[in-house]
Amino acid sequence: MSQLDSNWSFVYDSRLTPKGFLFAGISAGLKASNKKDLALILAPEGSVFSGMFTQSIVRASCVHICEERIKTTSGFLRAILINSGQANACTGNLGIQHFQIATEKIAALLGIKEEEVLMCSTGVIGVPIQINNLVKNLPKLVSDLKSNNFQNTAEAILTTDSTSKKVLIETIIQGRKIKIAGFAKGSGMIYPNMATMLAFLTCDAGIQKEEWDRMIAIAVKKSFNAISVDGETSTNDSFVGINAGEKIEKRFFPIIQQGIDIVCQNLAKNIARDGEGANCLLEVLVKGTKNTDDAIMLAKSICNSALVKTAIHGCDPNWGRIISAAGNSGVKFNLNDVDLFIGNAQILKKGKLNKYDPKKVTYYIKSRMKGRYLVDDIVKIMINLNSGESKGTAWGCDLSKKYVEINSEYTT
Amino acid sequence: MSQLDSNWSFVYDSRLTPKGFLFAGISAGLKASNKKDLALILAPEGSVFSGMFTQSIVRASCVHICEERIKTTSGFLRAILINSGQANACTGNLGIQHFQIATEKIAALLGIKEEEVLMCSTGVIGVPIQINNLVKNLPKLVSDLKSNNFQNTAEAILTTDSTSKKVLIETIIQGRKIKIAGFAKGSGMIYPNMATMLAFLTCDAGIQKEEWDRMIAIAVKKSFNAISVDGETSTNDSFVGINAGEKIEKRFFPIIQQGIDIVCQNLAKNIARDGEGANCLLEVLVKGTKNTDDAIMLAKSICNSALVKTAIHGCDPNWGRIISAAGNSGVKFNLNDVDLFIGNAQILKKGKLNKYDPKKVTYYIKSRMKGRYLVDDIVKIMINLNSGESKGTAWGCDLSKKYVEINSEYTT
Repeated sequence: MSQLDSNWSFVYDSRLTPKGFLFAGISAGLKASNKKDLALILAPEGSVFSGMFTQSIVRASCVHICEERIKTTSGFLRAILINSGQANACTGNLGIQHFQIATEKIAALLGIKEEEVLMCSTGVIGVPIQINNLVKNLPKLVSDLKSNNFQNTAEAILTTDSTSKKVLIETIIQGRKIKIAGFAKGSGMIYPNMATMLAFLTCDAGIQKEEWDRMIAIAVKKSFNAISVDGETSTNDSFVGINAGEKIEKRFFPIIQQGIDIVCQNLAKNIARDGEGANCLLEVLVKGTKNTDDAIMLAKSICNSALVKTAIHGCDPNWGRIISAAGNSGVKFNLNDVDLFIGNAQILKKGKLNKYDPKKVTYYIKSRMKGRYLVDDIVKIMINLNSGESKGTAWGCDLSKKYVEINSEYTT
Repeated sequence: MSQLDSNWSFVYDSRLTPKGFLFAGISAGLKASNKKDLALILAPEGSVFSGMFTQSIVRASCVHICEERIKTTSGFLRAILINSGQANACTGNLGIQHFQIATEKIAALLGIKEEEVLMCSTGVIGVPIQINNLVKNLPKLVSDLKSNNFQNTAEAILTTDSTSKKVLIETIIQGRKIKIAGFAKGSGMIYPNMATMLAFLTCDAGIQKEEWDRMIAIAVKKSFNAISVDGETSTNDSFVGINAGEKIEKRFFPIIQQGIDIVCQNLAKNIARDGEGANCLLEVLVKGTKNTDDAIMLAKSICNSALVKTAIHGCDPNWGRIISAAGNSGVKFNLNDVDLFIGNAQILKKGKLNKYDPKKVTYYIKSRMKGRYLVDDIVKIMINLNSGESKGTAWGCDLSKKYVEINSEYTT
């Protein structure tokens, strides 16, 4: 969705965050690199939290406790503590203890209840948090809380990410300025059903819990659940959306939904584009399906294909791999109905090879591989199944030697 | 299964093929490299054919026609023509015509009916067969037919494979020598549900069609459907098993099944080991499951994880990725019941981290990465869910920069 189609404008000054929210991001010595590794969001009183978490059977204990706390408090929480040194997954009772120690301490410092604090972790699985470092630095973290500290917070949750991922947008509703801000981390282990990612969204338009849950779920389906870097789902994937402040009238909900969608899709594309070792964003639009789920499922199958990803990396218009990946998506279609485009070049017309210049397609991909980050570095593939009225988009990236390098040397 | 556990012995002389079968493999100028690219199997009269084909929605027309011909003839066919220059997938009517021209000509040369000939193709998708070259060379192919020409045939079906894949075994039943010989191709686009692979099995013990179909299906489930190189299923995946000759008594069927299993697993391991750019075979045994399907599904999820595969490549005992991949397999389990071994090192004991030396595990993987092909180059992972009596094995390989290199430069 381009900015022109929407009621929302991008805010390029990351200090101008939604009203009432405070942010902090510091280095607490959890990462060996001494980079920022501990973040905090403090939401105003009466804020409404909604969370969506990894669907893996093996979930970090922090995920369990977060879900539980959102349930117990009916979504009325106040803070999220995020560490990026260690995932604290598969760490047994110690992991649970660390969660409890950390949230108890930060709650005391903030003057709120322990149950009102969530904690999200990311990093190497099976490694406990450096809890002493973390606890020691909590006062410093709290004193760092500011409304204009969004950038530091976005940086503190990164692991192998090459860049921080954040987006702020605003609109005016009945003369009132409404803001939504989101930030995320993720660059590997990225797949449907939440990816190894953490993402957080704050919004200063008040919306009741039930409606908020529904809106967040819709946005996640079309964003974080429509990206793939490597087909991996993680133990810690979490997305938390928070709204706060004066309630907004129901008739404006579609505008808020549009805003949440923009923020989530922007973060999702950022995550896909920053896939480990990637040089471009791969955007696959599937049209003409019976329903949206089919379109996203087929688009994801293409984004997730190692052979499509390596072909894109090689700027090779090897369209057979795209069709082959489509054929394995689980979506039924008839090849004789299929149109396929790479960029502007139509490769298949109703399943038949169309006249096109492979060199031009190679040139198109090559130019995108050298494009500017999320500006003109997007390789677009479009498939029309011509068998329905629905459509959906998924995002991925190319697969490079660098991905292998990064991931074969991750802990050693 | 080791040779000692079975009634079967390996035959190391590839000229000693099952009785009555003739083989040919030549260069027909289908590949730019001028390497062998056209193969033929001629089975004795009365042979019984069973075929299993790709489950992709996008299937090459040769797959459709093969299925149809097996049905029409009730499995009483005589020959298989195999070309490795072009996949002849997504080539529309031209692909069908090429199939028909080729099988009609070869049938005429062999003095059999066109419907008694199958044709399998492998290579780049979307590219038609160089049919003139193929047809021109059919007489040469037929004159090449010999019982001792198995090696050439095995070579002629390869594409990016680094080595030919073949296995011959024999046993004695009631004083009669029984032989089974199989050969295969595949080193990328390899996944459950047939992989991008072609494989062919010949057996000189006669077994009726229905029973033969059942036996072949059992073997495929535990072999070709339990490997993964890159999670890709292809348009052309095919496995054809042929038996011929004097019928064998029903009470010896278990021995034949054992033989088919050995041949199929051997070929499947060969395919997984020869994964593009791979340095080792990854063997994942999952025990203690409620049923075999669960065990294989979980084992495959680990074999197919890009993060596990890159960790193995980096000789990194990053066991969290193994557990994470298990968590996404779709198989339900409780982490607190799980034992995990890499080689002899027990990493998890009932879900808890066990004392082990990560350096020794690194050394174990490193030594395997330098091992001899399918002799001592197997990295073994074992997971016990401790929640049932079943087990299953899957095979994969490490993911190297070479894989990316090979696949980003495939057609350009």
